[in-house]
Amino acid sequence: MELQSEGSATQAPWPTRTAVSRTELDPVSFLHRSAAVHPERIAVVDGARHLTYAELRERVNRVAFALRSGGLERHDRVAALCPNVPALLELHHAVPAAGGVLVAINVRLGPDEIRYVLEHSGARALFVAAELEPLIVDPPAGLEIIRVDDGGAAGPYEQLVARGHAAGVASRLMDEEEPIAIDYTSGTTGRPKGVVYTYRGAYLNALGEVIEAELGHHPVYLWTLPMFHCNGWCFPWAVTAAGGTHVCLRQTDPALIWRLFREEGVTHYNGSPTVQTMLVNHPDAGRLERRVTAMVAAAPPSPTLLARLEEINIRVVHVYGLTETYGPHTVSAWQDGWDGLPADQRAGLLARQGHGYTTADPVRVVDAQMRDVPRDAVAMGEVVMRGNNVMAGYFANEDATREAFRGGWFHSGDLAVWHPDGAIELRDRGKDVIISGGENISSIEVEQAICAHPAVLECAVVAVPHDHWGERPKAIVTLKEGATATAEDIIAFCRERLAHYKCPDSVVFGPLPKTSTGKVQKFALREPEWAGRDRRIN
Amino acid sequence: MELQSEGSATQAPWPTRTAVSRTELDPVSFLHRSAAVHPERIAVVDGARHLTYAELRERVNRVAFALRSGGLERHDRVAALCPNVPALLELHHAVPAAGGVLVAINVRLGPDEIRYVLEHSGARALFVAAELEPLIVDPPAGLEIIRVDDGGAAGPYEQLVARGHAAGVASRLMDEEEPIAIDYTSGTTGRPKGVVYTYRGAYLNALGEVIEAELGHHPVYLWTLPMFHCNGWCFPWAVTAAGGTHVCLRQTDPALIWRLFREEGVTHYNGSPTVQTMLVNHPDAGRLERRVTAMVAAAPPSPTLLARLEEINIRVVHVYGLTETYGPHTVSAWQDGWDGLPADQRAGLLARQGHGYTTADPVRVVDAQMRDVPRDAVAMGEVVMRGNNVMAGYFANEDATREAFRGGWFHSGDLAVWHPDGAIELRDRGKDVIISGGENISSIEVEQAICAHPAVLECAVVAVPHDHWGERPKAIVTLKEGATATAEDIIAFCRERLAHYKCPDSVVFGPLPKTSTGKVQKFALREPEWAGRDRRIN
Repeated sequence: MELQSEGSATQAPWPTRTAVSRTELDPVSFLHRSAAVHPERIAVVDGARHLTYAELRERVNRVAFALRSGGLERHDRVAALCPNVPALLELHHAVPAAGGVLVAINVRLGPDEIRYVLEHSGARALFVAAELEPLIVDPPAGLEIIRVDDGGAAGPYEQLVARGHAAGVASRLMDEEEPIAIDYTSGTTGRPKGVVYTYRGAYLNALGEVIEAELGHHPVYLWTLPMFHCNGWCFPWAVTAAGGTHVCLRQTDPALIWRLFREEGVTHYNGSPTVQTMLVNHPDAGRLERRVTAMVAAAPPSPTLLARLEEINIRVVHVYGLTETYGPHTVSAWQDGWDGLPADQRAGLLARQGHGYTTADPVRVVDAQMRDVPRDAVAMGEVVMRGNNVMAGYFANEDATREAFRGGWFHSGDLAVWHPDGAIELRDRGKDVIISGGENISSIEVEQAICAHPAVLECAVVAVPHDHWGERPKAIVTLKEGATATAEDIIAFCRERLAHYKCPDSVVFGPLPKTSTGKVQKFALREPEWAGRDRRIN
Repeated sequence: MELQSEGSATQAPWPTRTAVSRTELDPVSFLHRSAAVHPERIAVVDGARHLTYAELRERVNRVAFALRSGGLERHDRVAALCPNVPALLELHHAVPAAGGVLVAINVRLGPDEIRYVLEHSGARALFVAAELEPLIVDPPAGLEIIRVDDGGAAGPYEQLVARGHAAGVASRLMDEEEPIAIDYTSGTTGRPKGVVYTYRGAYLNALGEVIEAELGHHPVYLWTLPMFHCNGWCFPWAVTAAGGTHVCLRQTDPALIWRLFREEGVTHYNGSPTVQTMLVNHPDAGRLERRVTAMVAAAPPSPTLLARLEEINIRVVHVYGLTETYGPHTVSAWQDGWDGLPADQRAGLLARQGHGYTTADPVRVVDAQMRDVPRDAVAMGEVVMRGNNVMAGYFANEDATREAFRGGWFHSGDLAVWHPDGAIELRDRGKDVIISGGENISSIEVEQAICAHPAVLECAVVAVPHDHWGERPKAIVTLKEGATATAEDIIAFCRERLAHYKCPDSVVFGPLPKTSTGKVQKFALREPEWAGRDRRIN
């Protein structure tokens, strides 16, 4: 091309902004690209059913077309109540492609909670897995319900796919900060809040996951993590960007997971320590030939669990985040000096929550006046975040948004210490810290010590009031099947590992009450201990 | 954290935008993160000199501080004329950190061209490697010149580092679409144009490189590609984002490259086919124990070259782009079906320019009316691009920007066919297509055939006028040292491989004239053939 005229000082120095140099960030673009580059690659495995990228794109286009032609307006909410089936993956692309906002609902909620989410979000349509239809009781007026039958069987969802057009619809996205999804948090108190994700946030977080999980080209990703949980940490878009294969999984059945690991050549999966613990303790557990990367979050994995995963060739990437941060926000990145350390110490370092993602801003740990706490690994403060990896705010809840964003940062409610190297380490979730004789005790630290006991499957430690010390830790312990241990065994075991003041005064045995996403409901354990008191600290 | 109040329909549904949820994309953030996460990791190797990430960050902070305290204003241009030394890597971070705009100048330009760039960009300061100072003749008035002595030796640059403050300066970035750099194109005609890059473009392209090159965590990247060339395709930021090691290299000395491959454990490098050809033909060439990934661009690598690289365990990622697209824009992504193909056919597929990057928009191939050409692998058209991976425009040259962006797309000037699978394949650079008896001949296709001859090092094919056919191809061939072949040999070899009308009528032997970035100057070969004519097509 010939240069038409030479630039000169009489021309404006900086170019005027034009649309030639800007495309709004949109994670749906990853599907279109992967389908163009690798049309024949397997995008989805669901038992015997396989979809290539070309097929996935066509189905997504058809659903988007059917939604649009059904009258969906920009930013209309479309809800889904499904386990990790192909339809839910398709909706992660089709609903934004149609200009709607996806509301993926936790399938472990009860009918009342589901009704609340449908009503609060103002959902216009609901895609519901056939087996979950009984959970839809007294649906809001005007809600269109589309049943999703399993395995691509004929039924309302497939009829909708057939109604659509393979060419899809033109995007209506005008600004990457428009909403792409609402994720209702499964709070342990109060009604759930609707966390609003944007196209920009979802795009950047998806790329962040590609990088932190080292998805590389063509991962085989097993869907142990529910897709309704923070939109599966943006992995519906991240794995698609990497041209990977989504292996669907309806429930965390460890025997099935072990079979899929081996038969499908799984390279990556994500899950809470609860899932990991189930896996390593299953009879089918055994060393994997090819290394598998597991992102672990929801609670710090115990050194014991980490060591066991390492033994069977599962590499742990320990991440931490909240629904409000699109899932993970920090990662405990493996550091050079760690290789030479004893396994226990290495695991201890990996159990820290670490630093902000490559695509996130650095996190801070602050006191009540929002001043940084000292980076001394001792002073506790609240973890706060900001930047592209933080939600836009809560849906239809300005008050809660204002409260969460006070001081210009998102308040996680989680308490952590700050290490001299800048890594954060969680000490407790909100009010779960135990203060005994003026000393802070991290219930997580005590829990990790107890979990190292060979008979222990899992445990929770809560504060109970004490006349002399103010508060004292109490442990509730679940033993492995067939294993035995007494309260005295557990306490003696702790005293070998922890400062004595940190060890529980009492231990009881039994199952742990959990939320629908598998978090231990500490308040339910704590409440009976504090009955009759008007404060929960002493 | 307690929910303060329940959301309700009386509250605005969508959250108001706040700074809590948005950070301007800034590739300098990658350095701060890597220095926080891996302070002791080696960031830079320059012979015996090593810098950790903590040291690199401190030096960058100091340079930014010194620039700012020296009076640098927002968007002031800061030029650099250096080979791939640590100072140039530092300036890629320090100049934007200070709020300036980096102008990295091609060290192969002559004094007049350098003076033009300094004057046209209005650079306020110039960092120049000591050995390149003679190239600065009659510098623009008021230009501050800071000499960079080699190997971190005491001198003006190190004095500036010492003047700075280790804490650096606060960013002045207000909008990610502000300019971060100007890259002057080494056009084969006319004066160079200043291509303006933005923070957003550089950030997204850097992440794109992390993904397409599969940099993973902690690559060891060898700087064969000049950092002044499209800001090293954004690898100064990409490798830093991946927490990798930058191995500096002043010139493409194949013996040194082979030594660094082996001694430094290089995992990635980038280079034109010219560089790759030098490498595979060097006496030190031999199979590498660990696979190395080479991004190859500037011209399609010949099937012969690709096969040879594969033999010695160098995996080629073939990419294509221009200065105006931050370096690479498309990639010929490896596809499943290719593994089973014969080596020649596989190499032929990899030699296509392929599809847009994961972080780029799809490219198009269009006719003069900007209609898509058919995807039939036959019809030729111009490659056009748009999106976040396209420059903001040319500096102080609205006319050229308008011309390049006509019809709302950036016009590459490159001619390609479009394959049925959506991959593009370049047929010629601009006017280099040869039209003979109404048939189009791709000079690149003929060049690839000739390069497969065992005696040939490199070649160029140009159109020469012909009374009967209009145009005919002529080949200019450089033989490998010590190898022999006649014109008849070359023509006979081509006729075994190509349709006869595509084979050159004449072959001459000798060196190829090249631009400072190593592109063959076809116009210089073509001009004498067309002397006395007023058109260059016949």
